[in-house]
Amino acid sequence: MTIVWTYDWVPEGPRGYVRDIRLRWALEEASLPYTVRSVPFEERGPEHVARQPFAQAPFLEDGGITVSESGACLLHLGKKSEVLMPRDPQGEADTLQWVIAALNSIEMVTVPWWLVGMSRPDENPLEGWMRQRLEQLEAVIAEREWLAASRFTIADILMADVLRVPKVRGFADFPAIHDYVDRACARPAFRKAHADQIAHFAASDRQREEPQ
Amino acid sequence: MTIVWTYDWVPEGPRGYVRDIRLRWALEEASLPYTVRSVPFEERGPEHVARQPFAQAPFLEDGGITVSESGACLLHLGKKSEVLMPRDPQGEADTLQWVIAALNSIEMVTVPWWLVGMSRPDENPLEGWMRQRLEQLEAVIAEREWLAASRFTIADILMADVLRVPKVRGFADFPAIHDYVDRACARPAFRKAHADQIAHFAASDRQREEPQ
Repeated sequence: MTIVWTYDWVPEGPRGYVRDIRLRWALEEASLPYTVRSVPFEERGPEHVARQPFAQAPFLEDGGITVSESGACLLHLGKKSEVLMPRDPQGEADTLQWVIAALNSIEMVTVPWWLVGMSRPDENPLEGWMRQRLEQLEAVIAEREWLAASRFTIADILMADVLRVPKVRGFADFPAIHDYVDRACARPAFRKAHADQIAHFAASDRQREEPQ
Repeated sequence: MTIVWTYDWVPEGPRGYVRDIRLRWALEEASLPYTVRSVPFEERGPEHVARQPFAQAPFLEDGGITVSESGACLLHLGKKSEVLMPRDPQGEADTLQWVIAALNSIEMVTVPWWLVGMSRPDENPLEGWMRQRLEQLEAVIAEREWLAASRFTIADILMADVLRVPKVRGFADFPAIHDYVDRACARPAFRKAHADQIAHFAASDRQREEPQ
């Protein structure tokens, strides 16, 4: 049984966006059995850090193997199911390329752009970098339904999750990226993963409200 | 035969730091045969973009397969040689985790921190994020020689390459990170890769200086 570890609770803002959704989504796409367990959001002790060195979530436990970093968890799951990762050499290489592009060419720009923009909304020094990368990506996505190997893969889970963040989505009018995110988020596996994450955190609210 | 594609020329500043060094280093570690070819640095046309959608270098050609993104190229090479990537499940999962950590938890901070710092050296809004991540990494590296699976892997190539950048190295005194980078860069495979990259760009200077 695969165990997805995530926080026991997060504030309203990030609900629906905590990265455990990437793991849930992949597991739903591949119909792999899994369960979800919680680590404390507020107190992250040495036991947590031993499993996630940057004191974040999620991490994965799978038959005695532990792995953290959502991208690495998806590459690990990709080895378990061809639904997630093609087995022909060029298809696999394409998938690796777009998995890394999502994390190291797009998210490496979108997350710091967002962080810097919180303190300097009017003159963000990462604005030009952000625009250039999204323009380049728009040109690719305008020509294809999914990023790698002419089919849906873990690369689309990562890229769509990076791009669906409201701030990124509102950055500029990139119609192909917009349609791509809509297409990805309309998949039943995404909808299930999203609803389950919302329910997970709502349940922790109810526990907090119950009299001791 | 594996072909590493890189620029024909770059300015003095990035020489020794262009990311083709990650591919050269991995190929040298694994004693895999390869050759290096060039694409124009100054004019990056549609043929370049077809192989690297963000108009960057390097990219890899390997028996008809093309793959870009240095992290993806290293994962591809890891499948070809156990020297680069352990074959036992936990060792492989560890390597995936630290490959992605290098690209998505450390480089995602160091590169934008450097970019933002060029325009705002005295009040960089990414300073705290940078310090926190390097402190967390320092705690890990203080306890081990290499990041994953108790041995040198492609995760160390990526992490050491991210950390050896002079700006990052000069950020603060993290003695374990400092020693780790020294240890990695003392390896014969790194020295060969570094010297070869320097020679590659020096040769293009000579070609430019020669009378037509």
